[in-house]
Amino acid sequence: MEKRNLYLKTTPVDEAIAIYLKAIKEIWSPIYETIPVTASLNRVTRHAIFAKYCSPLFNASAMDGIAVNSEKTIGANEATPIDLELGVDFKVVDTGDPINPPYDAVIMAEDLIDIGVENKVRIVSAASSWQHIRSIGEDIVVGEMLLPSNHKIRPIDISVLLSAGILEVEVIKCSEVAIFPTGTEIIEPTEEPKEGDIIESNSRMFENMITLLGGIPHRFPTIEDDYDKIKEKIKEATEKYDMVIVNAGSSAGTEDYTVHVLRELGQVLIHGVAIKPGKPVILAIVNNKPVIGLPGYPVSAYIGFENFVIPVINMFSGQAKDKTNEVEAVITKRLVSSLKHKEYVRVKVGSVGGKIVAAPLARGAGAAMSLVRADGFCVIDQNSEGVEAGEKVKIELYRSLQEIENTVVVIGSHDLILDVIGDMMPNTHPNTFVSSTHVGSMGGLMALMRKEAHMAPIHLLDEKTGEYNINYIKRMFKDPMALIKGVGRIQGLIVKKGNPLHIQGIDDLKNHRFVNRQRGAGTRLLFDYKLMEMGISPDEIKGYDREASTHMAVAALVGSNSADVGMGIQSAAKAMDLDFIPIGEEEYDFAIPQTYLDLPIIQSFLDVLKSEKFKERLQELGGYSLNRIGEIQLLREEV
Amino acid sequence: MEKRNLYLKTTPVDEAIAIYLKAIKEIWSPIYETIPVTASLNRVTRHAIFAKYCSPLFNASAMDGIAVNSEKTIGANEATPIDLELGVDFKVVDTGDPINPPYDAVIMAEDLIDIGVENKVRIVSAASSWQHIRSIGEDIVVGEMLLPSNHKIRPIDISVLLSAGILEVEVIKCSEVAIFPTGTEIIEPTEEPKEGDIIESNSRMFENMITLLGGIPHRFPTIEDDYDKIKEKIKEATEKYDMVIVNAGSSAGTEDYTVHVLRELGQVLIHGVAIKPGKPVILAIVNNKPVIGLPGYPVSAYIGFENFVIPVINMFSGQAKDKTNEVEAVITKRLVSSLKHKEYVRVKVGSVGGKIVAAPLARGAGAAMSLVRADGFCVIDQNSEGVEAGEKVKIELYRSLQEIENTVVVIGSHDLILDVIGDMMPNTHPNTFVSSTHVGSMGGLMALMRKEAHMAPIHLLDEKTGEYNINYIKRMFKDPMALIKGVGRIQGLIVKKGNPLHIQGIDDLKNHRFVNRQRGAGTRLLFDYKLMEMGISPDEIKGYDREASTHMAVAALVGSNSADVGMGIQSAAKAMDLDFIPIGEEEYDFAIPQTYLDLPIIQSFLDVLKSEKFKERLQELGGYSLNRIGEIQLLREEV
Repeated sequence: MEKRNLYLKTTPVDEAIAIYLKAIKEIWSPIYETIPVTASLNRVTRHAIFAKYCSPLFNASAMDGIAVNSEKTIGANEATPIDLELGVDFKVVDTGDPINPPYDAVIMAEDLIDIGVENKVRIVSAASSWQHIRSIGEDIVVGEMLLPSNHKIRPIDISVLLSAGILEVEVIKCSEVAIFPTGTEIIEPTEEPKEGDIIESNSRMFENMITLLGGIPHRFPTIEDDYDKIKEKIKEATEKYDMVIVNAGSSAGTEDYTVHVLRELGQVLIHGVAIKPGKPVILAIVNNKPVIGLPGYPVSAYIGFENFVIPVINMFSGQAKDKTNEVEAVITKRLVSSLKHKEYVRVKVGSVGGKIVAAPLARGAGAAMSLVRADGFCVIDQNSEGVEAGEKVKIELYRSLQEIENTVVVIGSHDLILDVIGDMMPNTHPNTFVSSTHVGSMGGLMALMRKEAHMAPIHLLDEKTGEYNINYIKRMFKDPMALIKGVGRIQGLIVKKGNPLHIQGIDDLKNHRFVNRQRGAGTRLLFDYKLMEMGISPDEIKGYDREASTHMAVAALVGSNSADVGMGIQSAAKAMDLDFIPIGEEEYDFAIPQTYLDLPIIQSFLDVLKSEKFKERLQELGGYSLNRIGEIQLLREEV
Repeated sequence: MEKRNLYLKTTPVDEAIAIYLKAIKEIWSPIYETIPVTASLNRVTRHAIFAKYCSPLFNASAMDGIAVNSEKTIGANEATPIDLELGVDFKVVDTGDPINPPYDAVIMAEDLIDIGVENKVRIVSAASSWQHIRSIGEDIVVGEMLLPSNHKIRPIDISVLLSAGILEVEVIKCSEVAIFPTGTEIIEPTEEPKEGDIIESNSRMFENMITLLGGIPHRFPTIEDDYDKIKEKIKEATEKYDMVIVNAGSSAGTEDYTVHVLRELGQVLIHGVAIKPGKPVILAIVNNKPVIGLPGYPVSAYIGFENFVIPVINMFSGQAKDKTNEVEAVITKRLVSSLKHKEYVRVKVGSVGGKIVAAPLARGAGAAMSLVRADGFCVIDQNSEGVEAGEKVKIELYRSLQEIENTVVVIGSHDLILDVIGDMMPNTHPNTFVSSTHVGSMGGLMALMRKEAHMAPIHLLDEKTGEYNINYIKRMFKDPMALIKGVGRIQGLIVKKGNPLHIQGIDDLKNHRFVNRQRGAGTRLLFDYKLMEMGISPDEIKGYDREASTHMAVAALVGSNSADVGMGIQSAAKAMDLDFIPIGEEEYDFAIPQTYLDLPIIQSFLDVLKSEKFKERLQELGGYSLNRIGEIQLLREEV
């Protein structure tokens, strides 16, 4: 085996970034540029900015009416009105017209009495001096500080600067960041992937994160795993840009050259940070520029960027990190973490019965969809071994709390119809959302018992009665419960297109590679029930212990010839263009405590469930029967 | 007088926008376009998007090590190790390499035992099938919903779309908005203003607000007040753009043509909304496009945009309005409002002694600086006649609560040094801020008594003792107080350059136009004291009742020949290039409850006050003596 890199140690996150920022500060000074005010949105001021003009620029009428000398109006009242003559005693003014001596007051048009004499008006009350006049400088005075230094310019600031005669502004230059994907196995998204290829997409995420931070990204084509090429490109980039990101090759694999290149070109301050995911981070300085090596797994790349790239860009732009929205939530699952690292666990967050709950998503570094689906992060400190289910944790929230509160929290068995409802609801019922987490039917009922979900989608066959769902709920819950009827689903065996292995039923499985669903999944219970019925032992099924957590995952494994057969629903087989051998129809319903039925978000959910549009979409998917959809069955506790 | 527009009625805000959006919905349908995923940041999806590829694309090693057939490892343990042969029993794999039959498991490099025989390794435990393998589709399964419809695309979404084989995405087209400034008196910021001119800047604010909303602004040159030209331009624009904004000319003045033009071209749904500032809003539809007339005063323009333009753009882009950050605060001043309108009052917000307080800023429609300085809005509903000082109100907050909590709240007499401290503090002490509101010395002490400020800058002369500040504090406060010594300031008369009226002192004021400071200002108390000393009655001073609220405002009025003389500080005279006749030196200090002295933000404030950098900046301004700056004097209650 070839020599691999060794991490001498992993540095705690806070220590790593502190060391790095300190080192950068020693070699870096801010760069400024002068730009037109009209193009300065979101830029950061170098100096405080002072007004060049007053606003208003002159004493101006604040009303439509006439300008007068207030002394000439003294004594006017109902008994002794005063008549004024145009050109002699007054002139007509519109709002904004200048007022100059001898005039020192404005009388509103509606306070003038028409006496039928041309060029004359009558007044019945005196004007006080300066009434209805906006004084010069009333809003802005010459020399007044308009904006402080280090201020991020907003639309209103641009307007005020221009009003005060400021046409140009000196601002901090935007950081220009070079991004290099590396790796011989990496292909562009536009290429057709072959086995072993990895589609390059991290650089596009970085690019857009930099844009959101106000920086200017420069994304370069992928460099293959070639020491000299990597070295040449990094060296060039540090001469031209403010910062360089090298993606992947930061780990300890046989072809991970980045750290060696950076050691040769400059100084590697940190290699390996106590963070999970994201450990193989490299923090280096080359040619007086920060160069950061980020790991290749998408979640690691994201977390590495958040923790190490953002602080550098913010330092360059003189801005503090945007404060994340932090809430306290109850964690729904035990999270074991190591003292070796700080861990970022992606969570779905919901508000159920007045309690905010956070359900952990897939923890793997490769689980990019966990970032897409996440409502926030639960950060487990390095000095913690984890949290117990039900414990209160701090969540860095990405969605607004208001959105969270308008979300139906669905935890239980997976079905594609949940995605369809989740897609439809915000459109048909603005500001309502559905969040679904897939833990199988039993897992869903457990979440419901712990009051972590509004409803649990389940399909649990009672072996004794042959009835679906109802008995499980009655047995497990003391509080009054209801069942919202969902869909009838054909469960069956998912096999390859054309069924080359001629699988006809469960008794044909023995010599083929099976993929099972996880414990607690309704599909697994049904499978176990069928095995038992037929007197087949799980040991006889090759792959019984290989678990996939959704119907689609089962279909994907069969579709890719990674398994020969799995059990699941027809729509999953159809989506992957596979064959399907029906085993039986089951009832996929929603268990819900009766107290939640009246919540507006649950009513919206029911509206969608019962809508024609929804039925149409399910018919497109196929494999569902819809005759009782949306019916509510109230369940009473067994005595 | 010419005919003016008449408002038939003003429509309540919510009703006006509801009527308008309903009318637009009837004539509008969304426009979509297909764009590359790499350019889709912040765009909004038309449809839900489903994965084209799985991720991983194939079964891949999750570790560096060897790929094996797990069946060949069965029975391996410390007592009965199994030796495996390269090419026969295993192949070497790096993380990410594909795993195919006959291999179905990966053993980590660190679990292999080197037995010194080439091409052979020993293992001492069995590999379970699928261990250390990332299954095809583990993260993303073909056909899985990646993003819902109507979703605003984030950097992570772009990355996931590309990984899943999606290269293009159908999104809602960005709204293109035409902006027309109008008015014969309007000049470009680049022109030298003459009296009567108004610098056009609202369109630049709109332009950038539209950009922040994801729209595309098209700002056109100002159209003069000419019925036919306005008509022609609006007509043209409605053919080409999604929406048109006409700025000013929306009111009822003699030259306000907009509403007449819009009536001729299309349908005016609303003219006049019950909102303050911002009443003269026009909501029209021309050529099936929304055309909005906004008032000319900057604050009215801003509030009109917020309330009427944003909802239309959000409807076009399928997005809900960003939820503003709402907090409850104690209002520091009585706000009288009318049942005729909903009012938007700009406020400074601070956190003092655990209480969030909101201090109203200038309420005028022309007070653009009140928008720059505001931390948020206090919205007074149309059905409310206002709020009493000390009442709890809801504030729409623009800064983060964390920033508010790190802000020193200074209320009292105005001095330029407050701006300088406010500018310096966030730079020398990151994440600390100073907010100053100017209500005069007595107003500041009152705010301090009501616990609405951390400190009050004051300069109050005790007529009996000739001493500054201390006696006032002792008389007014029961709690232990302190005085932070500030600066010595020369107060005097501000007169025109060259002193053409030969004013030498207060006894020379009688025949000249004076401008006074507001009641409760230390400068006014000093002036009153001097008048009394000299036996002059306020009635003898022309302009005694004309009030300006800062030194700079006094200087501006003198500088523009709007007054002949005013009283203020030397630095204000210097800033406006005016002459100055000293009357005496006064002490400008900070009154503060002793309990606040230990707060970190107050310590930061003191650091800045005592810093060399600060002293340098004051020396540049001139007119200050600094010998006791930053000294703390603890005051005991009089017995």
